[in-house]
Amino acid sequence: MFKITPTNKEFSKEIIHKINNKTKPLGSLGTLEIIAKKLCLIQNTLTPKLNKPTMLVFAGDHGIVKNQPVSSCPQEVTHQMVLNFLEGGAGINVFCKQHGFDLSVIDAGVNFEFESNKKLINAKIAYGTKDYSLAPAMTKEQCEKAIKIAGEIVVEKYVNGSNIISFGEMGIGNTSSASLLMSAVTKQSIESCIGVGAGLTEEGLSKKIDILTKVQQLHGVSENPLENLQNFGGFEVAMMTGAMLKAAELKMTLIIDGFIATSSLLIAQVINKNIIDYCLFSHQSNEQGHIKMLKFLNVSPILHLGLRLGEGTGAVIAYPIIQSAEIFINQMASFESSGVVNPVQ
Amino acid sequence: MFKITPTNKEFSKEIIHKINNKTKPLGSLGTLEIIAKKLCLIQNTLTPKLNKPTMLVFAGDHGIVKNQPVSSCPQEVTHQMVLNFLEGGAGINVFCKQHGFDLSVIDAGVNFEFESNKKLINAKIAYGTKDYSLAPAMTKEQCEKAIKIAGEIVVEKYVNGSNIISFGEMGIGNTSSASLLMSAVTKQSIESCIGVGAGLTEEGLSKKIDILTKVQQLHGVSENPLENLQNFGGFEVAMMTGAMLKAAELKMTLIIDGFIATSSLLIAQVINKNIIDYCLFSHQSNEQGHIKMLKFLNVSPILHLGLRLGEGTGAVIAYPIIQSAEIFINQMASFESSGVVNPVQ
Repeated sequence: MFKITPTNKEFSKEIIHKINNKTKPLGSLGTLEIIAKKLCLIQNTLTPKLNKPTMLVFAGDHGIVKNQPVSSCPQEVTHQMVLNFLEGGAGINVFCKQHGFDLSVIDAGVNFEFESNKKLINAKIAYGTKDYSLAPAMTKEQCEKAIKIAGEIVVEKYVNGSNIISFGEMGIGNTSSASLLMSAVTKQSIESCIGVGAGLTEEGLSKKIDILTKVQQLHGVSENPLENLQNFGGFEVAMMTGAMLKAAELKMTLIIDGFIATSSLLIAQVINKNIIDYCLFSHQSNEQGHIKMLKFLNVSPILHLGLRLGEGTGAVIAYPIIQSAEIFINQMASFESSGVVNPVQ
Repeated sequence: MFKITPTNKEFSKEIIHKINNKTKPLGSLGTLEIIAKKLCLIQNTLTPKLNKPTMLVFAGDHGIVKNQPVSSCPQEVTHQMVLNFLEGGAGINVFCKQHGFDLSVIDAGVNFEFESNKKLINAKIAYGTKDYSLAPAMTKEQCEKAIKIAGEIVVEKYVNGSNIISFGEMGIGNTSSASLLMSAVTKQSIESCIGVGAGLTEEGLSKKIDILTKVQQLHGVSENPLENLQNFGGFEVAMMTGAMLKAAELKMTLIIDGFIATSSLLIAQVINKNIIDYCLFSHQSNEQGHIKMLKFLNVSPILHLGLRLGEGTGAVIAYPIIQSAEIFINQMASFESSGVVNPVQ
């Protein structure tokens, strides 16, 4: 479905040589050196450049929220927050403005009729998913359509010159989808994949575990990632999966955000494992399942700030650190050029 | 010696109310919320602003380096790196440029005659400290002069409109000073305060422990922080202490860098404990003693990137995260202003 070329690991030696000849103690830029190496591998160059950082925020509603108490927020908050995005007042707006991200908000399937707005991309699959405590969240056709449309949005950004992209989401109830997808992919018990989301009480958490356990029993777990996505996904979650796969196919650098975004990546990497070569992991969320997801993927996050806002905010907040990596490998002097003695030689 | 006013903690409730009314789940910006609160307390306002971020890099040589193998680098690297700073090729240069820092390089006591250069502030106390394996590193007068001059440099930046400042260093051998000062202030064994610095081997580390153990036995540990600074300090370390104290007196926000900078702060907070109210801790260094310093001060670092470059680089790399805190508290919409339902109410 997606042709993703693995990066050329044989190039690593040359990259490490360049990094080790910068005027600094060996290895002393820690994680920045790891990021710089990854940028070089992705772009297949010793002088990587970050162009036109892009944030796609996908919004969608979840049928289950109307019938079951899986969230501390009412469903209306999804469309209210989309309106807040369009007004520029949400977290993702102010951080995108800070770091010069091109922010697009996509209606993937919100249960609300938005007035036409040039800031909102209308890609509505339906007015929210079906309640997956009763039936699959979406049909096969809806799932495929979500993946396809999201890929098309990514292509548009790529053609426009972007080579680094991230994916955010808004959808009341979507931590439930993420937990169900995580359990399906990682084979960990559904209970160990569930957290408090936007702010459940202990009692609320216990109810959420009961409800999602029954949902999992109803549909079972499939070996086919798309079937899991149809059963448990949200339209925004499916679109993030499609967008990630297309971005990796285009050799863009992907900045993966928190719990929901990583659940989309879990599905994506079953579809094509090479996608991981193109991913940077922005932060470790305070949603407990996220830590386990990162461990499952065997990857290290850049930031540990206890964030759990969603919307892609963690990815944007991490962006200047990625930029610092790009800047040091391109701009710092080498021992040869500076006349500083290299103590290692 | 320095009049540092504690911040008004009673203001916290009002700050937290503002933070909790932003359109996001309660507490979901994690560390950013803690930083935002601190900025509000320091500036005594609900709308803090970061103006003209300043980086002062102090360079000095250490007499012990000529006679004892405490460092993997020869002493000449100090002046070579200062020349690299003046050429713009070092880590601190490229990160300061990235984030718009006003960078000043100060010759606190380098063992080299620099040609006059408008980018270099000449505050040379001497051509390096005395070898403290034989005699105190500096006289009382030298120590007091270093503290005073550094304070004057800070005042100049403050008068020029800066309200956020950080302190970096360059001085081959200065992890030894930092370890000795740390041991003196925290009462932890000298061995537990010593790390590999710029890149010692295991054998080198073992020698460093022997040498510094003898140095500590020679001078003993004083209850007077200035005496410890005279015995074990470097001119750059003493200047950082003075600069930090003056900046806190002026109610600036201080970004504390890694192992050496935190050793200067350890001395400063014995002189006046209120300084901590004005400090943000940028990162946790890979130099093992640094983790223990942060624990001793009971503070949490912003970044965990395994940095150990020095020069103040960790502080500058952390700056955009501090900016994100300032931006969210000033620019994000509240539940009231946005029409988003507050699920907590």
